Amino acid sequence: MLKIRLLVAALAMTGSLSASAAESLPASAPAPENNPTTAEKVSLGKMLYHDPRLSSTGTVACASCHNTMLGGEDNRPNSMGVNGQTGGRSAPTVWNAAFNAVQFWDGRAASLEEQAAGPVTNPIEMGMKSWDDVVARLKTIEGYQDAFEKAFGKDSISKDNATKAIAAYERTLITPNSAYDKYVEGNTNAMTEQQVRGMKKAVEIGCTSCHSGPAFNGAGMFQKFPVNSNGYFEAQYHFQKDLGRAEVTKSDADKHFWKVPTLRNVALTAPYFHNGSVKTLDRAVWLMAKLQLNKELSDAEVADIVAFLNALSGEFPTQSMPHLPGTPGKAFN
Amino acid sequence: MLKIRLLVAALAMTGSLSASAAESLPASAPAPENNPTTAEKVSLGKMLYHDPRLSSTGTVACASCHNTMLGGEDNRPNSMGVNGQTGGRSAPTVWNAAFNAVQFWDGRAASLEEQAAGPVTNPIEMGMKSWDDVVARLKTIEGYQDAFEKAFGKDSISKDNATKAIAAYERTLITPNSAYDKYVEGNTNAMTEQQVRGMKKAVEIGCTSCHSGPAFNGAGMFQKFPVNSNGYFEAQYHFQKDLGRAEVTKSDADKHFWKVPTLRNVALTAPYFHNGSVKTLDRAVWLMAKLQLNKELSDAEVADIVAFLNALSGEFPTQSMPHLPGTPGKAFN
Repeated sequence: MLKIRLLVAALAMTGSLSASAAESLPASAPAPENNPTTAEKVSLGKMLYHDPRLSSTGTVACASCHNTMLGGEDNRPNSMGVNGQTGGRSAPTVWNAAFNAVQFWDGRAASLEEQAAGPVTNPIEMGMKSWDDVVARLKTIEGYQDAFEKAFGKDSISKDNATKAIAAYERTLITPNSAYDKYVEGNTNAMTEQQVRGMKKAVEIGCTSCHSGPAFNGAGMFQKFPVNSNGYFEAQYHFQKDLGRAEVTKSDADKHFWKVPTLRNVALTAPYFHNGSVKTLDRAVWLMAKLQLNKELSDAEVADIVAFLNALSGEFPTQSMPHLPGTPGKAFN
Repeated sequence: MLKIRLLVAALAMTGSLSASAAESLPASAPAPENNPTTAEKVSLGKMLYHDPRLSSTGTVACASCHNTMLGGEDNRPNSMGVNGQTGGRSAPTVWNAAFNAVQFWDGRAASLEEQAAGPVTNPIEMGMKSWDDVVARLKTIEGYQDAFEKAFGKDSISKDNATKAIAAYERTLITPNSAYDKYVEGNTNAMTEQQVRGMKKAVEIGCTSCHSGPAFNGAGMFQKFPVNSNGYFEAQYHFQKDLGRAEVTKSDADKHFWKVPTLRNVALTAPYFHNGSVKTLDRAVWLMAKLQLNKELSDAEVADIVAFLNALSGEFPTQSMPHLPGTPGKAFN
């Protein structure tokens, strides 16, 4: 326990970090008052989340881009929606998304429920014309009538309930027991010396000023990215092509502001940044220090921080595959 | 038991069906001598089968078109591969494919192992340039090095072993205990009166001459389809656009010949036929009788046979989701 106290003290001393940064990941996520988590909702939500019939072509599920068998996204620079279309942003991980105060890179959704409604009718993502069409399709599938009834009562297939169920399922997607979690819970052998060194460096240079809290996601903070850029970096990575939060708010003050993304499982979610333009975590760490903190890290410092970030990869819970209900004798649409 | 014996006798009386048609689905599938099924191969095969990184874009897994959460295919007329491309044929179900003597609609693969190699490098399916590229990519993923080692020994990542593992996994995808299976095992209440009537009608008109054996797949038989067509049907369904087995053998004698597909879970695999041109099972049954057997079924007869075919939907085993290994800190390709 002594080392832990020392760590917390060390973290607090930086002035830019509260002691809460040394908290381990909670085992469960809070649910909003109007959508308490139940086993029936989670079961239905898991079906909907993995069902490609929520897309116009029947080929793209939530899980296609936010892959629950991988690090919660698709390892692509940007995702591929219906008919091979791609957008400009990289899919954020669904793992531990329940701990984000807002959703989407630009924070335009205030909840998982609100987020879940978006991609389904986005023409380059899942491509459904409207949620009315989704609801009509789900109503033709007897197994969904039953699953909604169990979760929400009779004749309850609706956009509102579908997104509530998906959000309830997503709240179960938590990856506890990373090396870091074990370390802050008192097992001082859980992290290597290099990882501890990397953690201290990350705190010292200021990474955790923004990537704060147990999910290292700034608890709803928006930050400008990049802060200190120039033509050289822009030509390589095109970070400033996308206005970020300003695309939503239409306010100049929000130009290039982004939700602070979680660092949990970051080693598993390459490529990096909002546009997925950086292929490796080494480079991402170096760029963050340079562009955000105006620090040029040595290779050794980068390696230490990367080692620490690998200590944030958690345990992925074993999940059963949902059995998706069929439409006996009929094509789904 | 009396009823069963009567049934078997009735089936045998038709002259076109051996008593073996009344066998229930075996609980396990035979494996070839050079690829005995092991838990380690099945575990690796399940990972590979669900991993979209086996495609050029990282978006299409075996499971994308042969969906293990659905009826083993995608409910589309024809599947959608990388970059939104589509082909001319409908994905066959992976469930019980282990009982097919040959694979693909045109039977061009003699085994599940051979089949598994095909789509990965098909430019409109998974789009990898070569299996060498697949192997090179898998070798960059540490978790796959371990999983191959457990299944096949040290440094064993290869096309041969990858397809063996996928085939070993597919041999576990069996759906036993359908109403029909329970019926032929002695539970005469397992099928409804209508289902029994439909079964007898299917035998009587000759469906089971080709759809024979416990998987109702003709055990490797090729048959011409359509046999008795005309311009009216061709204009609607374009069945003859595709030469079928002749595309492989280049022999005129094989024009419009197809592997007899399984009827197991057929109620879950709409739309129907090699080109997925028929949306409902009712219509598929009517067309089969008309085009293959030159019989015009009444609506009641169609309904009875469809009821029977629904009795062939089996129990889908509960499966855990594989956890796909990441490439820490690097984009997968």
